Amino acid sequence: MPSPIIIRLKKHEDRRLRNGNPWIYSNEVDVAHTPLSAFTPGQAVVIENHEGRALGAGYINPHSLICVRLLSRDPTVQFDKDFFSQRIQNALKLRERLFSAPFYRLVFGESDGLPGLVIDRYGDVLVLQITAAGMDKLKDEIRAALLELLQPKAILMRNDVPVREIEKLTCAVEPLYGEPPQKIELSENNARFSVPIWSGQKTGWFYDQRTNRASLLKYVKGKRVLDVFCYLGAWSIQAALHGASEVQCVDSSAQALEWLQENATLNNVQDKIKLLNEDAFKALVRLHEAQEKFDVIILDPPAFVKKRKDFKEGFNAYRRLNELAMRLLTTDGILISASCSMHLQRDDLRDVLSAAACRYDRTLQIIEQGHQAPDHPIHPAIPETDYLKAFVTRVVIHPL
Amino acid sequence: MPSPIIIRLKKHEDRRLRNGNPWIYSNEVDVAHTPLSAFTPGQAVVIENHEGRALGAGYINPHSLICVRLLSRDPTVQFDKDFFSQRIQNALKLRERLFSAPFYRLVFGESDGLPGLVIDRYGDVLVLQITAAGMDKLKDEIRAALLELLQPKAILMRNDVPVREIEKLTCAVEPLYGEPPQKIELSENNARFSVPIWSGQKTGWFYDQRTNRASLLKYVKGKRVLDVFCYLGAWSIQAALHGASEVQCVDSSAQALEWLQENATLNNVQDKIKLLNEDAFKALVRLHEAQEKFDVIILDPPAFVKKRKDFKEGFNAYRRLNELAMRLLTTDGILISASCSMHLQRDDLRDVLSAAACRYDRTLQIIEQGHQAPDHPIHPAIPETDYLKAFVTRVVIHPL
Repeated sequence: MPSPIIIRLKKHEDRRLRNGNPWIYSNEVDVAHTPLSAFTPGQAVVIENHEGRALGAGYINPHSLICVRLLSRDPTVQFDKDFFSQRIQNALKLRERLFSAPFYRLVFGESDGLPGLVIDRYGDVLVLQITAAGMDKLKDEIRAALLELLQPKAILMRNDVPVREIEKLTCAVEPLYGEPPQKIELSENNARFSVPIWSGQKTGWFYDQRTNRASLLKYVKGKRVLDVFCYLGAWSIQAALHGASEVQCVDSSAQALEWLQENATLNNVQDKIKLLNEDAFKALVRLHEAQEKFDVIILDPPAFVKKRKDFKEGFNAYRRLNELAMRLLTTDGILISASCSMHLQRDDLRDVLSAAACRYDRTLQIIEQGHQAPDHPIHPAIPETDYLKAFVTRVVIHPL
Repeated sequence: MPSPIIIRLKKHEDRRLRNGNPWIYSNEVDVAHTPLSAFTPGQAVVIENHEGRALGAGYINPHSLICVRLLSRDPTVQFDKDFFSQRIQNALKLRERLFSAPFYRLVFGESDGLPGLVIDRYGDVLVLQITAAGMDKLKDEIRAALLELLQPKAILMRNDVPVREIEKLTCAVEPLYGEPPQKIELSENNARFSVPIWSGQKTGWFYDQRTNRASLLKYVKGKRVLDVFCYLGAWSIQAALHGASEVQCVDSSAQALEWLQENATLNNVQDKIKLLNEDAFKALVRLHEAQEKFDVIILDPPAFVKKRKDFKEGFNAYRRLNELAMRLLTTDGILISASCSMHLQRDDLRDVLSAAACRYDRTLQIIEQGHQAPDHPIHPAIPETDYLKAFVTRVVIHPL
């Protein structure tokens, strides 16, 4: 066995590691002992404290702010098929406990001890996203472990994510095994969906909202519903199936609305669904001008705050969006407002709602708080793994 | 009509009110115009901005840090039976939408536009808590509104709360109407409970945890469960009814355990329930010494951080409690950890879990996050109304 490649930390800089966080920032490295320029992106390394005691093993990217990610506290570990097999089995055990069918996020990066790797399971088709050079080097070992454990028919890599560019990786959508189909079918809360895994958003489906969509269902019976940023219709079609009288769907993508229509037909609710192919903000203004009103509104936008420096602009966009939606609600209406922006905290989204309610004299009560589903576990020492916020609110027109 | 009693704010000090928060701090009052010494605790007042424009009506307590609480944006409002009737009807409408049976928190203070008032509904018996002098003065109007709206058999006042002393109010438990029974019966997630409304904790029952208790049920089948701070057995008896093989209950109150035993018998699960009458921390150490192990552990302690200055001590108590519990878990066990301390934020409790997991080399994943039930709505401009945190976590012994 070749001797391991070592990276040494400065004195006291092992504190974060001791507290359970697996990240090492470039300024914590003792570059006199182990200069970063000596490493190539994605190399496996053993991490030492300032006295040369081995703390664990991980991979390095000398060009990243977070330059090392710890994968194991065991410095002698090899990142081979067995390593991945053990980690994926541990992740699988949780999902099999939680779900009766094999449709879930199987691996959620750091939270499952596999930083830079996401695996969504769609029955016998797996869709991967690899976002770090260290993990990208290991894709053959990952494939071998997955084939042995799960015998999938096909594995697709959705490596078309901008973050890969920072890691000097190419962006592409390509099979890792077999011939992945264009679409797969899944079921959620008794509704069926056809999901475009090659060309849809992210890996095709957003498993993270499934518990929040279940929360929606009790509010829709006999109600007129508006679903903004509707994508494939996950919220709207479930609402229609659970008794909504009519669902207005809004998306700026004509392709998404076409997919949604197929899904509506699949569930035989096409008569309840109305489509509007327009920018969300413009659509909310137009619907107000047309004096439309809705009993239940769902706002499930893409991340408006992609970087910390965009916080203020993003906050204002969320506020404006929520204002416009509240104006369309009948009194005593339900607004479900979500954000997946990692840099917009839960308290910030509550402030968004508070500010938006003042704009048109609404009184708002938060009656439920939603989170990412349990197949997206949170690492308690990495707050960044807790990214999805949803509030179920009751909005009354100026009663107090 | 007598002319209203006015309190005037300093310039710019109407900002919080304009942003939806109904609290006025004593340092925001223009005491040159309206000296606080001129007011008596609980007086109804009209609030003016620095230019003399009326902003709304509320009540004052000149001795409190939060000296005025706004009840209405309408400065001409009278706090009479009709006022309470309207507010309570608005609160009732939400609960009737949410629950099929009349058992819930009917009024949750500020969040329902009634600061200083809590009403728990147990079928035809209501239990009130009044925690502000301004509200205490209005109890006849509250009673009249409740009798007209709900025709209860009895109303009990559980005014035995220390915060009343700050408001110069007496502490007592006494009927406000009729003859409240010693105990009432309720049902939660198919389990039945006899609840001591005169002498139990708070108003007798903790409706706020009901959704979190529902989350527990999917993890208990065939499992050995430990319920720490068990009180009346709300968690343990539901666990036993939903398939737990055995439930060890811990409480320092012999009276609570006696009540719990009655409830166990009521549900015919007494054979599964074991009682331990001991301080929680001591019990967790003793169980470890006896080499006991549990698959599921529930920590639902009273508030350890009652005041902001007790934060550090309280944080450490939560950490120690969670450490001791994790040590008792079988591998891949479930820990449900809650806190109702207003001054310990959700992120703080996550930090507690992170620190506790490091103590005995556990790897912890947060798989669900729980909140107060929807009959305890959150006022978006008053973060203090969001007080209950619960984490459902999976704990693995040192795998990563």
